[in-house]
Amino acid sequence: MGIETDPETGQFHRAPNRFTSRITADGRDGWPVEPGRYRLVVSRACPWASRALIVRRLLGLEHVLSVAVADPIQDERSWRFTLDPDGRDPVLGIRFLGEAYAKADPEYSGGISVPAIVDIPSGKVVTNDYPQITLDLSTEWTAHHRPGAPDLYPEALRDEIDEVNAVVYADVNAAVYEAGFATKQKAYEEAYDRLFARLDALSERLATQRYLVGDTITEADIRLFTTLVRFDAVYHGHFKCNRNKLTEMPVLWAYARDLFQTPGFGDTVDFDHIKRHYYQVHKEINPTGIVPKGPDLSAWATPHGREALGGRPFGDGTPPGPPPREETLPAQW
Amino acid sequence: MGIETDPETGQFHRAPNRFTSRITADGRDGWPVEPGRYRLVVSRACPWASRALIVRRLLGLEHVLSVAVADPIQDERSWRFTLDPDGRDPVLGIRFLGEAYAKADPEYSGGISVPAIVDIPSGKVVTNDYPQITLDLSTEWTAHHRPGAPDLYPEALRDEIDEVNAVVYADVNAAVYEAGFATKQKAYEEAYDRLFARLDALSERLATQRYLVGDTITEADIRLFTTLVRFDAVYHGHFKCNRNKLTEMPVLWAYARDLFQTPGFGDTVDFDHIKRHYYQVHKEINPTGIVPKGPDLSAWATPHGREALGGRPFGDGTPPGPPPREETLPAQW
Repeated sequence: MGIETDPETGQFHRAPNRFTSRITADGRDGWPVEPGRYRLVVSRACPWASRALIVRRLLGLEHVLSVAVADPIQDERSWRFTLDPDGRDPVLGIRFLGEAYAKADPEYSGGISVPAIVDIPSGKVVTNDYPQITLDLSTEWTAHHRPGAPDLYPEALRDEIDEVNAVVYADVNAAVYEAGFATKQKAYEEAYDRLFARLDALSERLATQRYLVGDTITEADIRLFTTLVRFDAVYHGHFKCNRNKLTEMPVLWAYARDLFQTPGFGDTVDFDHIKRHYYQVHKEINPTGIVPKGPDLSAWATPHGREALGGRPFGDGTPPGPPPREETLPAQW
Repeated sequence: MGIETDPETGQFHRAPNRFTSRITADGRDGWPVEPGRYRLVVSRACPWASRALIVRRLLGLEHVLSVAVADPIQDERSWRFTLDPDGRDPVLGIRFLGEAYAKADPEYSGGISVPAIVDIPSGKVVTNDYPQITLDLSTEWTAHHRPGAPDLYPEALRDEIDEVNAVVYADVNAAVYEAGFATKQKAYEEAYDRLFARLDALSERLATQRYLVGDTITEADIRLFTTLVRFDAVYHGHFKCNRNKLTEMPVLWAYARDLFQTPGFGDTVDFDHIKRHYYQVHKEINPTGIVPKGPDLSAWATPHGREALGGRPFGDGTPPGPPPREETLPAQW
């Protein structure tokens, strides 16, 4: 993987997503919602893909939208299915996610990213537009949600959710990468300052309310969670986001544990994939490829006390059951 | 600086010291103790050199043994006096410590390390044998110790101090480097496991006694301190010693703060030199040279509560006064 930074400023900026078709109930982009038709390709290492894994679990979409889990270690051809027998995804029959990109656009020469949704019959990637993917799972796939599925993007709260998502994206989700991939001190420090100022503000917001928006889990919590769960394992050391560990920010740490212990969150998290991916793939910042043994992760299971703040995690709905057997992860510590 | 590791095992081992003459009261190696004759060359970044800085302060040797502080950033000619006017040490008149090595041995082609003691009249390095340097300051320079100087290497406790020093060297002082410079996962993990097992054992030992050996500060405390004070600032992230931060080991953290707040310890510590040295010099493990902004260091000044364990820091002696004006460091946070 080549990390591209501005040679002048040393700043890293994420490339835009190329495939932005939407899978909708009415099929207006040519891709109608259909059980069994699409395959969600993820890496469990990737925070952007992990959003989709969590939303899929919370909404009970496992049986209508199957998942392909890429090897956390990319090679120069990017994400690959080397965890599967013969190194091929058993449903799509391909070895590299890039093959589905090429099927959709033979001229495409940009980056290959997860999450991506692939149309199984044609083998073409439909979308790698991660912010839209989760919203569409919430709003377009409603016919297939499990009974008791929560509303993760309630109409009445959308403006507020969008607003929170925008700052969390800029100052948290993307900022950790901007700190970690910066090649100049100034660019690094600007991202670091922005990140911790935002984490302080979020701590304050979450000191008196259990969730970011309203009194139930929403898309906003999912987007913050996928960065927080990687914080001490990767971003604190590897990306030099080290003013403090997450465990040293009492409110955010309790908030993150609360979500982790909620069915659909922690059961999607594979710390082994997370750690190996970041430390072995980014040779630009970790040339030895050594993967740290720490930190001790068992504290993720400790009581968080956030129930005292009230809130109704699933609103009028219910928690999801356990993950399908083939998606059940090994013990994490 | 080239870090040499075994290509087979990926293990890093410190090279032996080349110059091992001793400066003694009786001058038996040809180098008699003499006020004003020698210059101690250090980097404040370096834990081995920092031992000598602390011992010199505790014993009040500042006015008989002057100090040259090298730039924390080495170039390919190693330690240099670029902090001084015209880039020359004003006493030795040299630009690089290596010049004093060459004066002593024109054939020498090994590493250039601090601490080193240089004979001012001849310009030759006498010793870079750091474990002996501090012991000799304690036992051979006694005629010049300040009134009230502590006995850092009391005869009756030497066996126990030597024993503690041996395990602290192998499993703490050297182990952090062995973890950080390892180029193979197995070599890293072996050093990491050894380090944290030893830190746990030291925590247990120090839970009920204020100092490592006896009830006063000794050489053993100094040697442990110089690694602990660098732990969260450098070793935790840069060397991947990240089972936990020092601040997460309550006994060791209080012990380290106690020492830090003791005159002669904290007043020798320059976190700016420490951080810039490790992160900018070791391009093999931090190619961007970015220096982390964190962690927040102000907690070093917080109460430690170790007085409750008793102990007499300076035994029958007294603490040293403040450092000489020209050695007074800027505020550290």
